[in-house]
Amino acid sequence: MPQTDSDQTDNVQADSDQTVLIEMIFPEQTNHYGTLFGGNALALMAKAAFVAAIRRARGAVVMARSDRVDFATPVRVGEMLELRAQVIRIGRSSMSVTVTGEAEDMATGERRPVLAGRFEMVAVDEAGRPRAIAKEFLKKEETA
Amino acid sequence: MPQTDSDQTDNVQADSDQTVLIEMIFPEQTNHYGTLFGGNALALMAKAAFVAAIRRARGAVVMARSDRVDFATPVRVGEMLELRAQVIRIGRSSMSVTVTGEAEDMATGERRPVLAGRFEMVAVDEAGRPRAIAKEFLKKEETA
Amino acid sequence: MPQTDSDQTDNVQADSDQTVLIEMIFPEQTNHYGTLFGGNALALMAKAAFVAAIRRARGAVVMARSDRVDFATPVRVGEMLELRAQVIRIGRSSMSVTVTGEAEDMATGERRPVLAGRFEMVAVDEAGRPRAIAKEFLKKEETA
Amino acid sequence: MPQTDSDQTDNVQADSDQTVLIEMIFPEQTNHYGTLFGGNALALMAKAAFVAAIRRARGAVVMARSDRVDFATPVRVGEMLELRAQVIRIGRSSMSVTVTGEAEDMATGERRPVLAGRFEMVAVDEAGRPRAIAKEFLKKEETA
Amino acid sequence: MPQTDSDQTDNVQADSDQTVLIEMIFPEQTNHYGTLFGGNALALMAKAAFVAAIRRARGAVVMARSDRVDFATPVRVGEMLELRAQVIRIGRSSMSVTVTGEAEDMATGERRPVLAGRFEMVAVDEAGRPRAIAKEFLKKEETA
Amino acid sequence: MPQTDSDQTDNVQADSDQTVLIEMIFPEQTNHYGTLFGGNALALMAKAAFVAAIRRARGAVVMARSDRVDFATPVRVGEMLELRAQVIRIGRSSMSVTVTGEAEDMATGERRPVLAGRFEMVAVDEAGRPRAIAKEFLKKEETA
Repeated sequence: MPQTDSDQTDNVQADSDQTVLIEMIFPEQTNHYGTLFGGNALALMAKAAFVAAIRRARGAVVMARSDRVDFATPVRVGEMLELRAQVIRIGRSSMSVTVTGEAEDMATGERRPVLAGRFEMVAVDEAGRPRAIAKEFLKKEETA
Repeated sequence: MPQTDSDQTDNVQADSDQTVLIEMIFPEQTNHYGTLFGGNALALMAKAAFVAAIRRARGAVVMARSDRVDFATPVRVGEMLELRAQVIRIGRSSMSVTVTGEAEDMATGERRPVLAGRFEMVAVDEAGRPRAIAKEFLKKEETA
Repeated sequence: MPQTDSDQTDNVQADSDQTVLIEMIFPEQTNHYGTLFGGNALALMAKAAFVAAIRRARGAVVMARSDRVDFATPVRVGEMLELRAQVIRIGRSSMSVTVTGEAEDMATGERRPVLAGRFEMVAVDEAGRPRAIAKEFLKKEETA
Repeated sequence: MPQTDSDQTDNVQADSDQTVLIEMIFPEQTNHYGTLFGGNALALMAKAAFVAAIRRARGAVVMARSDRVDFATPVRVGEMLELRAQVIRIGRSSMSVTVTGEAEDMATGERRPVLAGRFEMVAVDEAGRPRAIAKEFLKKEETA
Repeated sequence: MPQTDSDQTDNVQADSDQTVLIEMIFPEQTNHYGTLFGGNALALMAKAAFVAAIRRARGAVVMARSDRVDFATPVRVGEMLELRAQVIRIGRSSMSVTVTGEAEDMATGERRPVLAGRFEMVAVDEAGRPRAIAKEFLKKEETA
Repeated sequence: MPQTDSDQTDNVQADSDQTVLIEMIFPEQTNHYGTLFGGNALALMAKAAFVAAIRRARGAVVMARSDRVDFATPVRVGEMLELRAQVIRIGRSSMSVTVTGEAEDMATGERRPVLAGRFEMVAVDEAGRPRAIAKEFLKKEETA
């Protein structure tokens, strides 16, 4: 489970729809032990967080911080990695996104949790300055 | 909609769960017009088909044929591509998998269909020879 | 041999010069069985079709459709893949391109056919709209 | 500055030699805003931490956790990113590695801090189980 | 034209068949000036030399040296790069391979020479030691 | 040691600070023998030369020529490659950069020289024409 020292509890909202990424682990992503390189795992998690945040903020988003990310067990070549990203907090211009990952053994279908982390994303305007995340948009989306 | 000249209608089964892949289109995947290169789109669709088939057959799977794949409109850099793969036919050792793709404009959330295709996958043993797809496994999965 | 359901027989012209692509199959392009991933094979074929079409139309070209592509036998890591693309039909703004692939065992020099497919490409202007392929250009090229 | 909630203060040792990685930011590593994608930044930092840890432990090392990583300002395409990784804590089988990054404007030579994070790495044996980091080795290195 | 300081003139043989590589220059291969990065150009030339040498020696080959490589003019994104590699000298276990490159403007079909270099390759056995290149094989090939 | 036929001896200056690049050799960079592909080694060396030259000239730089590059012994997957680039000659608009590489066995820490080469780089303006390298800048740097 991702644990962070963040105490930003303002305006926390449940986000019903998740962003799901699936990745087959091919040799090009592994280190020389035949397992997914930790750096590539972080890059995939960041991509999931990025997509979830941009869908919520509807516009440019940058990563401000990654919080604690835990690697429970290695992901082996030939396994499938499924990442789920969810926006769990929305501030004026920032969002907290959790990302959890499960590895699936393709031969048996068995799954095990392998990754869990949290990322802070900020909505930015064209000049790269933080911009407010539209409340109207959020309401409209939630009633849809 | 994917249309193929395949008339293999034996043993067609509905597959309730889909395999969903999401990809942000970054500059590294585009041609020099700023749109997703057709070859990269095919590679992503093949990956989706591969994962869907391997989940159904629970073991090694290779691509035997790609059928007609239509590219409706270009996918632009900065858009999100969501691919949905579904096994629509299961034979003794082969499977038909359809893959459809929608592009999402990240600023508006609007989506449009951009890709549709069909792929024939074959379950293989360790020597690369076609192997039967276990019926028992299919039943167990469908009652789960 | 590539077989498609296309019956566009207008203005078919023989194209004497082929576009030839050669690719060494390195581990980064393989799946976890040690053979060329089907998706990467499609991407390479699309690149060959793209180059052949752009050379014929002399300007921007996009892929409108891939027709049936057959994967005869897997290509192994360490083998060489030679792709030959040929424009076999030219319409007002579209072209049909066949791509065939042979794998070469580098130790013996023996070759075997491994891939065959057909792609429909469309010449486009700067706004991405179909544009006519210049007949003058074609004539000039053929007398050269 | 990287701040973590880790209170593992046993056996902290200064590490005189740093591992330095330099990376030119090319278009292939950027998102569609023309800046280094956060996920790629994390992957590069993880690589730096990996090299620093493996040099200290002299054998296989895996990432157990990334702690808070701060992204101060975006790194633009065409800039150089210099990462410095340093082992700041050595336990029985684990190590804490800090990684800081500076971007360098190639036209002026001006630098600014852009990244700071901390990673927990674990030395493992061939079966992937934690193994003790040899004290003898550490002593020998420090007198060299 | 490639000029080298090599004076290994023993056993020079004309090689009638060339190895031809074609590469579309996409953004992922360019530096931040929009032209093919010199390092990527060298990697493509080395691949062409590698294929030409392995075809001649029919077995594992490694690069022992690259000689002078000239970059006449930059290759721009969207251009096609055609590389031709030719074995121009065969020693007991080594080969000299020249590689020349032409860029093709896809809109006009005009070509200009952009690259020329020379590489020394060595045939090796499974332990990586130099091995003799079979004369029988060469003769058989030349009469074919 | 890199040896070139260059006799441009005007204005040779010692460059005290080196540019150091470190790269872990992962499977994605190897050929099918499990060693670093020669072409990738050249690309990494070119990157090191590029960074060293751009730091000296403070502005756009292109590669004009690579001189002799020697590959002493193969670099194996799992090893670390450390490249050191140094500007050894500065002309009006051109620079000579030597790059040497050492492989480090991560288990023992032993190092051996594996690569040595020399590259000629040219400072260019926005139109890609050679531009003079500022003497003022060089002086200021050397007194710093």
